[in-house]
Amino acid sequence: MSIVLGPNQYGKAEVRLVRIDRDTARHRITDLSVTSHLRGDFTATHESGDNTGVIATDTQKNTMYAFARDGVGSPETFLLRLARHFLAAPQLTGGRWLAEQYGWERIAVGPHAGPGARGDVGHDHAFVRGAAERRTALVHADDTGLTVLAGLRDVTVLKSTGSEFSGFLRDRYTTLPETDDRVLATDVSAWWRYEPSFSEAAGPAEYDERFSAVRSILLETFAELHSLALQQTVFAMGRAVLEAYPDIAEIRLSCPNNHHFLVDLEPFGLDNPGEVFFAADRPYGLIEAAVQRSERAGEHPVWATIGGFV
Amino acid sequence: MSIVLGPNQYGKAEVRLVRIDRDTARHRITDLSVTSHLRGDFTATHESGDNTGVIATDTQKNTMYAFARDGVGSPETFLLRLARHFLAAPQLTGGRWLAEQYGWERIAVGPHAGPGARGDVGHDHAFVRGAAERRTALVHADDTGLTVLAGLRDVTVLKSTGSEFSGFLRDRYTTLPETDDRVLATDVSAWWRYEPSFSEAAGPAEYDERFSAVRSILLETFAELHSLALQQTVFAMGRAVLEAYPDIAEIRLSCPNNHHFLVDLEPFGLDNPGEVFFAADRPYGLIEAAVQRSERAGEHPVWATIGGFV
Amino acid sequence: MSIVLGPNQYGKAEVRLVRIDRDTARHRITDLSVTSHLRGDFTATHESGDNTGVIATDTQKNTMYAFARDGVGSPETFLLRLARHFLAAPQLTGGRWLAEQYGWERIAVGPHAGPGARGDVGHDHAFVRGAAERRTALVHADDTGLTVLAGLRDVTVLKSTGSEFSGFLRDRYTTLPETDDRVLATDVSAWWRYEPSFSEAAGPAEYDERFSAVRSILLETFAELHSLALQQTVFAMGRAVLEAYPDIAEIRLSCPNNHHFLVDLEPFGLDNPGEVFFAADRPYGLIEAAVQRSERAGEHPVWATIGGFV
Amino acid sequence: MSIVLGPNQYGKAEVRLVRIDRDTARHRITDLSVTSHLRGDFTATHESGDNTGVIATDTQKNTMYAFARDGVGSPETFLLRLARHFLAAPQLTGGRWLAEQYGWERIAVGPHAGPGARGDVGHDHAFVRGAAERRTALVHADDTGLTVLAGLRDVTVLKSTGSEFSGFLRDRYTTLPETDDRVLATDVSAWWRYEPSFSEAAGPAEYDERFSAVRSILLETFAELHSLALQQTVFAMGRAVLEAYPDIAEIRLSCPNNHHFLVDLEPFGLDNPGEVFFAADRPYGLIEAAVQRSERAGEHPVWATIGGFV
Repeated sequence: MSIVLGPNQYGKAEVRLVRIDRDTARHRITDLSVTSHLRGDFTATHESGDNTGVIATDTQKNTMYAFARDGVGSPETFLLRLARHFLAAPQLTGGRWLAEQYGWERIAVGPHAGPGARGDVGHDHAFVRGAAERRTALVHADDTGLTVLAGLRDVTVLKSTGSEFSGFLRDRYTTLPETDDRVLATDVSAWWRYEPSFSEAAGPAEYDERFSAVRSILLETFAELHSLALQQTVFAMGRAVLEAYPDIAEIRLSCPNNHHFLVDLEPFGLDNPGEVFFAADRPYGLIEAAVQRSERAGEHPVWATIGGFV
Repeated sequence: MSIVLGPNQYGKAEVRLVRIDRDTARHRITDLSVTSHLRGDFTATHESGDNTGVIATDTQKNTMYAFARDGVGSPETFLLRLARHFLAAPQLTGGRWLAEQYGWERIAVGPHAGPGARGDVGHDHAFVRGAAERRTALVHADDTGLTVLAGLRDVTVLKSTGSEFSGFLRDRYTTLPETDDRVLATDVSAWWRYEPSFSEAAGPAEYDERFSAVRSILLETFAELHSLALQQTVFAMGRAVLEAYPDIAEIRLSCPNNHHFLVDLEPFGLDNPGEVFFAADRPYGLIEAAVQRSERAGEHPVWATIGGFV
Repeated sequence: MSIVLGPNQYGKAEVRLVRIDRDTARHRITDLSVTSHLRGDFTATHESGDNTGVIATDTQKNTMYAFARDGVGSPETFLLRLARHFLAAPQLTGGRWLAEQYGWERIAVGPHAGPGARGDVGHDHAFVRGAAERRTALVHADDTGLTVLAGLRDVTVLKSTGSEFSGFLRDRYTTLPETDDRVLATDVSAWWRYEPSFSEAAGPAEYDERFSAVRSILLETFAELHSLALQQTVFAMGRAVLEAYPDIAEIRLSCPNNHHFLVDLEPFGLDNPGEVFFAADRPYGLIEAAVQRSERAGEHPVWATIGGFV
Repeated sequence: MSIVLGPNQYGKAEVRLVRIDRDTARHRITDLSVTSHLRGDFTATHESGDNTGVIATDTQKNTMYAFARDGVGSPETFLLRLARHFLAAPQLTGGRWLAEQYGWERIAVGPHAGPGARGDVGHDHAFVRGAAERRTALVHADDTGLTVLAGLRDVTVLKSTGSEFSGFLRDRYTTLPETDDRVLATDVSAWWRYEPSFSEAAGPAEYDERFSAVRSILLETFAELHSLALQQTVFAMGRAVLEAYPDIAEIRLSCPNNHHFLVDLEPFGLDNPGEVFFAADRPYGLIEAAVQRSERAGEHPVWATIGGFV
């Protein structure tokens, strides 16, 4: 019996790449953190430090910046381009490319709201950072081909009513009272997997539109479902996405339950009809679920590379 | 010569208080982190652990939650109410109350954009967290009375052109080239001090409107000034606020220079006409300045309680 | 074709549990962040909000605190106790319990270093937090039984010489020079999987001793190997652990390459013979590898639940 | 009345400087984050973007790295050298230089504990990061000369007994029960100001020794005082330092009260005699105090530049 190298990958993480499109006076900004991971036969470097086949992580970074010279497009298409470039190297058998995108909005200037003023208003080249949430994208490559995931992270949402939690199992360690009206708050993180029928045909515009549409469905479902459990909300959010888009194969969500505890004001002679809350940091609930199509049996290998999702 | 207690204060920090106004089906949310600091004669507790006059930090927290039962209003008015309550205790000679407010927006639902649809649309009781920036407020009390500051933190802004930096001093340690076109990016943090003429008369609506107006002026000035130095931009931002509002006595800004370095693509046979940048984390420049009115000599004592501002 | 619930789990995360053993005047402290995840048939709660079988996350938290009343022991044995308790519920088919432990050292007091003073000296009940690194433990349950992993996170190490990187592939995007002497720095995170022969017999003392021994091996190997690539160092660290302990089935490591760039001092007329470095935040290299025994084919299901490790 | 520039400063923040002393095979490492702030007549750059007198923040960074070529010594002496260099520029009237130092320990290798093995053992050039706490230093310059502060940050300590809190004021918002045995935990941050008699004569060795000695006094006092209030502990810690060292003029401490709440186990039929605690994140108490010598009246101007300390 001997000791051997098992699965392995290496790359450059969190390359902060900002691309300004300035073909016209109305600039556009794409702000990314990109990670590249390569897989292949790297036994020699692990066992003896023979780096002959190693594409240095510094080279991976340089490649990102060089490719950005031609424009980034959507994060998905940029990652696909990186993937195809690296996979041309014969020592590679696969890899994983990840991007997180930060949002920017144009700074409002001047008399902003004349009749009919809609959509893309604001300053030509001055921007303000939007919400803390990030758009995410991932391209996974193995011997079965390329898989594209899209997602979002840390979309913080809250309902101030329309949420219950009752009927749960009670054992000797249960003290939680049932409630028919609570605050429900979470930071939505999700990944959805595109069918090849979509990912092989889509261009940057299609990826961008689809991302926005899925984000809207997730938020609307969170808002409109009367919730009996965060699990129910999470599943409904995922189902609504799959119902809307047959070319999304599955979606996985990871949602903390950010507890908002009703403060007991009785010691001060006051009631508290759902108005004053303490927002706790830790611990928090954590709900993770995959929503899938019944005819697709089996686990796609991409999920084993993503932590914190089921 | 003996060893004595010097300046001191104590309190409860970062009380996470979420208030839901639910008088109608259209809820409103106020999400605060509140800190209370009391000052007075607390020599006994420091020297011998005699806590007779100590208002426990737990009591300070309870007071915040109890007061929130009546509504929060604006952060400034909420802090003023706390200040006046605590200052009624004879052992107190002063204090400092601080709030940071997190922003929430209504989740867009349904067909959002019919003609005339403007302003406060979106779901009645479902919200999504806005930008990472926070609104801040501070009430300071000493024997000269109450002072109200308002501010904002971490408003991340970026200009993709319209910024130069040249003509600076060159010594033996200078390697930075001059540039007539660079990315300028910063996280604006600012505090402005209201004249008593404003702070003694304003209600929550006035404080809210003023906050929004000052924030807009800061952003518009950042956007529209052709910048020759971040110092020039910072000063212009402050001056624009003082010019607009005579009842703002002074404003202080602290602005990192979030460097975006143009990536050298020459080794790859490519030019880079201001399009591909590396966004660095550290180190960063840091520019701090007070903008004041000439006839007001002297330093207001509130500033000694605020770190990171000049 | 219908839309169905796929893999799912839920629980309470980051329960901050501090246990003081005070049977004698010489207290001991165990400081944990514990996460519990349950798996089973929870279709009803996801599809319709029927919570009949749901063990509330609040109950999971209560159970941890109640169990701690009897003592915690090692994190592995505490998690095993939690696992066995929850798995007795018929609706459960599996789960995952995770702990991170913070280290504390006794505060040195008095004349500390008389002859023969060794080992467990310091104050009886006053402690100072040790390094930022954390010890970790994980118990995974599915229909094949219980699996125990132990690990560590963020053990930051640095070699100021004894590290080279050369002979790597050069393509049109390669600019990195070769080096025969560089700073090598990383934050070691590792998980190792115990054979049932160990995990079924070990008590808290055995788990604690083994943890310390593995940590020492990892650090010594990092220190003593002359490194030709971080991959070589990572593999050698893992192999040394497997060589020392046949009852460790495999080990996985995730190690960023925390770049320390030699500062170019030539513009100032100075050389820099490996003495002055800029420590960069981002981007960073990232090396991940599993080290296994050759006769054990196949992937253990526990790894799919752990992100950021291959 | 006109709008004018008030107090201002600018510089480069958090320059990550790692210096390796490798004169012998036994390397030494100094790991710093350094911030430089310059003050002077910079009206032209603020008002019109005329940068004639501006020492670019990039130049400030370069100067740090160039000076490190000669060795760093202690953080205090390194900052003093920077201060004197910059103050030679006629346009400067003052400044502020700050360093935070990260601790590293040698990795233990081989048979570590032979008889007589004490003190500086471990590997020659391999290190492991110590506690999260940091040593700090600050040099402040104005027209009265140079002032040197030394300090520490985030030294996390905990007493599992020997702490009470009772006898405090009770008002209508008080619910906290009195206790004669609680966990007391804090993250000690402190700054002490050296008399010129010390700071003008001390070399790196004296600064290093003094830092270690003050840190030991702070920890020992925390450990050994039976505490009736965190205020009492904080004051005693400061007093012990001033009693030990007449050439320390004053010391200021900022200490959160990191609450550890005894968990109520009664619902589970269990007592909890001070053994099982929930460690809360927020809110936390916050105690800040200056300890001074009685004959020194007045406030030193350096304190106005340091936030979060009284």
